[in-house]
Amino acid sequence: MADPVSTPAVQDYPLLSKIHSPADLKKLSIHDLELVASECRKKIIELVSLNGGHFGSGLGVVELTVALHHVYNSPQDRIIWDVGHQAYVHKILTGRMSEMDTNRRYHGLAGFPKRSESDHDAFDTGHASTSISAAAGLAAARDLAGRKEKVIAIIGDGSMTGGMAFEAMNHLGDIKSDVLVILNDNQMAISPSTGGLKTHLVNITLNKTYNKLRKFVWDSISMMNNEFGDTAKTAVHRLEDGFKAAFTPGAFFEALGLRYFGPIDGHNMEQMVKALREMQSLPNPKLLHVVTTKGKGFKPAEDNQPKWHASSGGFDIETGKNIAVAGKPSPPKYQEVFGEALVELALKDKTITAITAAMPSGTSLDLFQNAIPSRFYDVGIAEQHAVTFAAGLAAGGFKPVCAIYSTFLQRAYDQLIHDVALQNLHVVFAIDRAGLVGEDGPTHHGAFDLSYLHSVPNLVIMAPGDEQELRDMLYTALYEVKGPVAIRYPRGSGNGTLLRKEFTPVPIGKGRLLRDGDSIALFAIGTMSIRASEVAARLEAEGLNPMVCDMRYLKPLDTDMIDTAASRCNCIVTIEENSIIGGLGSGVVDYLNRKHPGVRCISYGLPDAFVTHGSMEELYREVGLDAQTLSEKILDFYREKP
Amino acid sequence: MADPVSTPAVQDYPLLSKIHSPADLKKLSIHDLELVASECRKKIIELVSLNGGHFGSGLGVVELTVALHHVYNSPQDRIIWDVGHQAYVHKILTGRMSEMDTNRRYHGLAGFPKRSESDHDAFDTGHASTSISAAAGLAAARDLAGRKEKVIAIIGDGSMTGGMAFEAMNHLGDIKSDVLVILNDNQMAISPSTGGLKTHLVNITLNKTYNKLRKFVWDSISMMNNEFGDTAKTAVHRLEDGFKAAFTPGAFFEALGLRYFGPIDGHNMEQMVKALREMQSLPNPKLLHVVTTKGKGFKPAEDNQPKWHASSGGFDIETGKNIAVAGKPSPPKYQEVFGEALVELALKDKTITAITAAMPSGTSLDLFQNAIPSRFYDVGIAEQHAVTFAAGLAAGGFKPVCAIYSTFLQRAYDQLIHDVALQNLHVVFAIDRAGLVGEDGPTHHGAFDLSYLHSVPNLVIMAPGDEQELRDMLYTALYEVKGPVAIRYPRGSGNGTLLRKEFTPVPIGKGRLLRDGDSIALFAIGTMSIRASEVAARLEAEGLNPMVCDMRYLKPLDTDMIDTAASRCNCIVTIEENSIIGGLGSGVVDYLNRKHPGVRCISYGLPDAFVTHGSMEELYREVGLDAQTLSEKILDFYREKP
Repeated sequence: MADPVSTPAVQDYPLLSKIHSPADLKKLSIHDLELVASECRKKIIELVSLNGGHFGSGLGVVELTVALHHVYNSPQDRIIWDVGHQAYVHKILTGRMSEMDTNRRYHGLAGFPKRSESDHDAFDTGHASTSISAAAGLAAARDLAGRKEKVIAIIGDGSMTGGMAFEAMNHLGDIKSDVLVILNDNQMAISPSTGGLKTHLVNITLNKTYNKLRKFVWDSISMMNNEFGDTAKTAVHRLEDGFKAAFTPGAFFEALGLRYFGPIDGHNMEQMVKALREMQSLPNPKLLHVVTTKGKGFKPAEDNQPKWHASSGGFDIETGKNIAVAGKPSPPKYQEVFGEALVELALKDKTITAITAAMPSGTSLDLFQNAIPSRFYDVGIAEQHAVTFAAGLAAGGFKPVCAIYSTFLQRAYDQLIHDVALQNLHVVFAIDRAGLVGEDGPTHHGAFDLSYLHSVPNLVIMAPGDEQELRDMLYTALYEVKGPVAIRYPRGSGNGTLLRKEFTPVPIGKGRLLRDGDSIALFAIGTMSIRASEVAARLEAEGLNPMVCDMRYLKPLDTDMIDTAASRCNCIVTIEENSIIGGLGSGVVDYLNRKHPGVRCISYGLPDAFVTHGSMEELYREVGLDAQTLSEKILDFYREKP
Repeated sequence: MADPVSTPAVQDYPLLSKIHSPADLKKLSIHDLELVASECRKKIIELVSLNGGHFGSGLGVVELTVALHHVYNSPQDRIIWDVGHQAYVHKILTGRMSEMDTNRRYHGLAGFPKRSESDHDAFDTGHASTSISAAAGLAAARDLAGRKEKVIAIIGDGSMTGGMAFEAMNHLGDIKSDVLVILNDNQMAISPSTGGLKTHLVNITLNKTYNKLRKFVWDSISMMNNEFGDTAKTAVHRLEDGFKAAFTPGAFFEALGLRYFGPIDGHNMEQMVKALREMQSLPNPKLLHVVTTKGKGFKPAEDNQPKWHASSGGFDIETGKNIAVAGKPSPPKYQEVFGEALVELALKDKTITAITAAMPSGTSLDLFQNAIPSRFYDVGIAEQHAVTFAAGLAAGGFKPVCAIYSTFLQRAYDQLIHDVALQNLHVVFAIDRAGLVGEDGPTHHGAFDLSYLHSVPNLVIMAPGDEQELRDMLYTALYEVKGPVAIRYPRGSGNGTLLRKEFTPVPIGKGRLLRDGDSIALFAIGTMSIRASEVAARLEAEGLNPMVCDMRYLKPLDTDMIDTAASRCNCIVTIEENSIIGGLGSGVVDYLNRKHPGVRCISYGLPDAFVTHGSMEELYREVGLDAQTLSEKILDFYREKP
């Protein structure tokens, strides 16, 4: 259970403490709505300073959210938050104020909208660029059912770079359903957002010369109206569209069939309320372009937006400075080890290129970006393009390293198969956030990559057991493997074994023996090999002599190692931080069944279910991958009569 | 080996027979290029009338291809054909004329560009919307290496609806690499293409009124130039963009950072050559909008473009009529059985909706489109959006049936997990073209779906053994399953067992016993259960008494059936038309290992390799899934000492 929730002190939040649902916002004046907004902002800063969480984007949409719930009628009207990490204010205003302190905690509120959590959450989000598709579907359902509710998608300019947002707008323009898309343009997604479209979305200054010129041409056209007769009206209408395109960023959206409005100041409550009221009465798909500042109202975040995209908490509310915590510093993160090693190699090898899909800081490719900007590519939130772009670089003679989170690579699964593996191109996939990720929960746990990669032909799949191995595997992927290759590694700190010694190739398809033994064999992959050693120590205490192997490769699998284990032990255990279906366990059992049918085998991994959010310790216990649970289960299995 | 190739008769192709590489096109006059084009057209019609193949799109790009190879210098310049089924003329002009008769045949030329086939094929294609990403990658490689070759992507208006094309253009606009995108606008992809963008791309008629009006405004602005001074130049430039947006479909592409040119007539050789020469000298990304007619030059195809997207051959070159072939008609296709059954159910149930990603005829959802247009959605080549749109419909209270080919569903893998399965939404995935597809080859074989779906939590996965079961499974998916569910079925005709009787639910997670026995058990899924029965007959002839089970469900797996088999047989065989890694075989072996460790099991399926193109019979033999090979291997396994 989550910790007992604290009730917000009435004196701290005089207005918010009276808002129990959006209905309580309906009759407030603009001035009071502004006060509500400022209390929301205070609450978010307080919350994230204690608990951590996503931050900048939430502060950017405070006025937008308050105005939205003032004007529209949730939950009848359906509000969908793209990505969803900006939905804290939405949660506060929809009856969850008193639970906000449990945000992102085990059994507490989720860090993203959840239909199971509240009727006000119209659609679960977490990954980018899904909101317009979901809104189109909800709107189509409404139209078929003859209902009248409004459907609203709020999407950032970063998420707008994802291809499915484009697909959805193109379809919306076709079915012409009443959907309001709010483009929350903070000129940033997580990092400064990328792409031609961004340049197009820069703030439009309607300066005096433009306006004067425009008026002159307009007057001229009006004079002409008579001369040209009826057809001229259409012509004038088209010309008006032309002007709109020249002077606003609307052309792009109008081309897709969405009426464009804006840009307006997303922190001006009066303008926001007025604009939303106007939107309410318009039929068909339309887009309201709102300009906001990420981190608005918290100076440190306004000044350094990428840093304050999310926070792990523990900072001073006034200065943003970390509150010192006693204790030794954490070992470097896998991300940092990866980023440093790649720069080290790329400084010597001019064929190495690095690609991220809008995650330069998350993947530590910002190190590469700073060191070798000419060979660094941030393609935006566009994993599909990232992978085929990498394939193009490889076909053009370069060595692309494509760093993508495990769950986001699901977006580029077809490209990985069709554009990389089928052509046997040498693209290195650095699969970050593989395994559980903790507080971000099920949308972000990298639970499936070993399974979905396993059946891809030509692909070499490896997972380092520690930081040093990550360095060596990156080297191996670049210089020993000739085709597509994936390295999966987890979020967060390693175990501090980093030596930063010279790179040593890791023999392809060979595991390493961590402990010799003969009673039972533990086969682990990735950082679960550290867990396997802990388990082995416990089993040893029970009188067993376990063999422990870091398999290192899922594909090709080290069948020699399995042969050796099978010849000595009649009981084999596999441990992986990946779905129990289709990964290492499957591979080992398949082989054992073919070659050593007598040997018993049991597999441990993530369950065939979506895993909730919480601390890593809580989640490991929940899924039974903590050392104690594993040891107990393995002992039971070992002692079972065969 | 492919059949011996026929050398083109010199008298039939007086010019083409002299074109051995694009170099031979360089010095030809426009008139001669036109003659070459007309010979190419003749060749394609002849070829497809005999062999079958993709058709309409190839005929549409004849002049474009000839002009391209006249102006540019392949293979130094890199030409990428999106999808690639329009590349027959390209193959003819790049030294493969004499091999064209082997097109799409086993060991013959591929129906798509292949780097392994020719240096002129810059990048393998097959799936839609990849060309601009690949071009961007090749161009980035060129820029890094300091080379000068040109990179050209040719993409249809249908492929342009795919999100990754947008992602790629957005990135191109950012890196500003010299890439020419040729938009081959035939107002059709396979079926009339969909979306707001299409409306925007309608032929622009610059009628007299518009031109007159434009000239007047232009003159006015010129007069004003002095009055407004220097800043007015910028203003005029923006206004010019505005006019462009008003009068051409260019605004959309200009917004992404690509300079827009066109539209021009793609069948006018002189215009095409002139336009391409102009493009050659321009830096940065640009888009040339070319309007073509699908099926150009073959009347039946011009008149009915969807029908003539591809042909299986055997038609009269003059009339397009099928040349009568003796013999009984084929049983209905799985596609037709699916389409008919869905209409039957949807006429009674107003909550059923149908979604296709630009494949209404391929999936037979055109039956639904005709019968119940209000609940039918063609979202364009946009699988990602299709799936999340379906999720939105489900969240809005409807029952969406999303029909997507197995390999194309790879495009929506993340949406299936993140937007459907995680919310446990009741979306029915009708996975068409599961298993081998024959002549289209590795880009289109549905070899991985059982594997990549297996580890998705909440998902029910089934595969019908025959047409009747497809009907019943569709019924079951709609009325017995409450969450996400997938039905995978193959391309082509069933075995003629269709009864069209009342729908009967198929018990969830239960297989059916096709033949009782006790020596060996054959577990098959999908149409491989028919193959299993053939194999059983052969084994019976060898004195065995095999048990045969149609497992029907991969998930949940029928463990009772496995228990029964394990209690009677000490030898179990699994057969599936899916990768040998991660599908039925894995599931059965995992279970056997846990519950019946003594029972031997061997699995047959598609190899861990990409399978080439050819007839189904040839491919089954190649992968060892024909009855004879299977029987021999299984007998060997059975007779092996355990």
